[in-house]
Amino acid sequence: MDKLLVVKIGGNIIDDDGKLIAFLKSFARIDGQKILVHGGGKLATRLAEKLGIPQQMVDGRRITDEGTLQIVTMVYAGSVNKTIVSHLQAAGCNAYGLTGADGNALLAHKRVGTETDYGFAGDIDRVNTDFVSSLLELGLTLVVAPITHDGRGQLLNTNADTIAQELATALSHSYETHLVYSFEKAGVLLDASNDDTVIPTLTPSAFQKLKEAGAIYAGMLPKLENAFAALDRGVTKVIIGKAEHLPALIAGSAGTTLSHE
Amino acid sequence: MDKLLVVKIGGNIIDDDGKLIAFLKSFARIDGQKILVHGGGKLATRLAEKLGIPQQMVDGRRITDEGTLQIVTMVYAGSVNKTIVSHLQAAGCNAYGLTGADGNALLAHKRVGTETDYGFAGDIDRVNTDFVSSLLELGLTLVVAPITHDGRGQLLNTNADTIAQELATALSHSYETHLVYSFEKAGVLLDASNDDTVIPTLTPSAFQKLKEAGAIYAGMLPKLENAFAALDRGVTKVIIGKAEHLPALIAGSAGTTLSHE
Repeated sequence: MDKLLVVKIGGNIIDDDGKLIAFLKSFARIDGQKILVHGGGKLATRLAEKLGIPQQMVDGRRITDEGTLQIVTMVYAGSVNKTIVSHLQAAGCNAYGLTGADGNALLAHKRVGTETDYGFAGDIDRVNTDFVSSLLELGLTLVVAPITHDGRGQLLNTNADTIAQELATALSHSYETHLVYSFEKAGVLLDASNDDTVIPTLTPSAFQKLKEAGAIYAGMLPKLENAFAALDRGVTKVIIGKAEHLPALIAGSAGTTLSHE
Repeated sequence: MDKLLVVKIGGNIIDDDGKLIAFLKSFARIDGQKILVHGGGKLATRLAEKLGIPQQMVDGRRITDEGTLQIVTMVYAGSVNKTIVSHLQAAGCNAYGLTGADGNALLAHKRVGTETDYGFAGDIDRVNTDFVSSLLELGLTLVVAPITHDGRGQLLNTNADTIAQELATALSHSYETHLVYSFEKAGVLLDASNDDTVIPTLTPSAFQKLKEAGAIYAGMLPKLENAFAALDRGVTKVIIGKAEHLPALIAGSAGTTLSHE
């Protein structure tokens, strides 16, 4: 089985040109088949402010009204995606950008039946793994913007963490898949304010014990539950840490590596 | 040799949601391999106005300063491209959007040495025909936004007519290529104000005679010179007419068809 690396980069990297370019150079140097999933950082919020479109966040998720959908489509699929693609190309990595609408890569439905009306927010129904695999086989590195579609002409705003997880799990049937979640912290921390307290490895049973002991920062719990779900669904390894440490994260010498017992 | 259709749609269609969706449905129904190249319409100008970024046009070309490049990247590669892709998908056409940066499809350089400084405007050096062909062979319909790159991390604003011409001529070595330029008028007109005066067919010698007689509207001359250049460089047929007439344009029953003697 070929190896596949799926990396999700968070907003803090995208908001900092210098950090972004350094990260992309280090990402470009990684051998083998790979997918980069990006968020949008604060650019969408700043553009909305300039255009006078009020933004509403509930539990860290953006409420996507029609004006906001236009903004995130422009920022995520246009500005951020093409900036990343052009810098990867400059670093010798044959990158190709896409949303879930392109090639029907990620089919979703508008979220309904929740207490909060999230507007044009999409939950993924299907990953078109044949299509994604055929692009990877052309030697392309895929750069995925967090926009999906419903197959009936409606674009939908979709959480980038979820896209990374869905891609990684769906492709784990054809590839030995490693999933890297990069964020602000150095890994899963015993003390959320101290980057020196990284837990280097976590198995489901160790996670359970730490959780019962209340040793894991509450904000990390949903991310970790999702990460373990990805392992259960076929992903070989999930690594959580700082994007700046990418080569070390992959080598297992930084961040937190989640794996089966 | 397989057939390939390259269609360029102009701004007037993109600015009108109803017309755009009707056009995309008719485009989706065309059999065979095809590429759609789109401009940006007035959306970029309107967004620039809202953001207070002054726009300067010289001879119908936009001067692309840094703020304007960000706007056209967002509007062309984000909003317009993904709207088109999602509507084509809804119409059963497996569309995939790209800029020239994606897969290094269109390598360009920043225009220099001209009297006017066009800013981040790109002139195309190379079409990556192997890559474009391999996408077409996957059964994808390509939707191309008028943004290219220089291979060193710089995105560039590039005229959509030129992109359509460069793609069509480069691919004419591998495909029997027909190029459709859609615009506001019903075709090449003897009387620019009367859509009933369409010249149905034009050969280079007939064009020469009409030009010498001053019978062709001056504004059409550069478009026609470019179209005949595409024929000289390998394109089998160039058709000029209204996007609303697409099936008739392809059937040769509307618009102006340019071909060799």
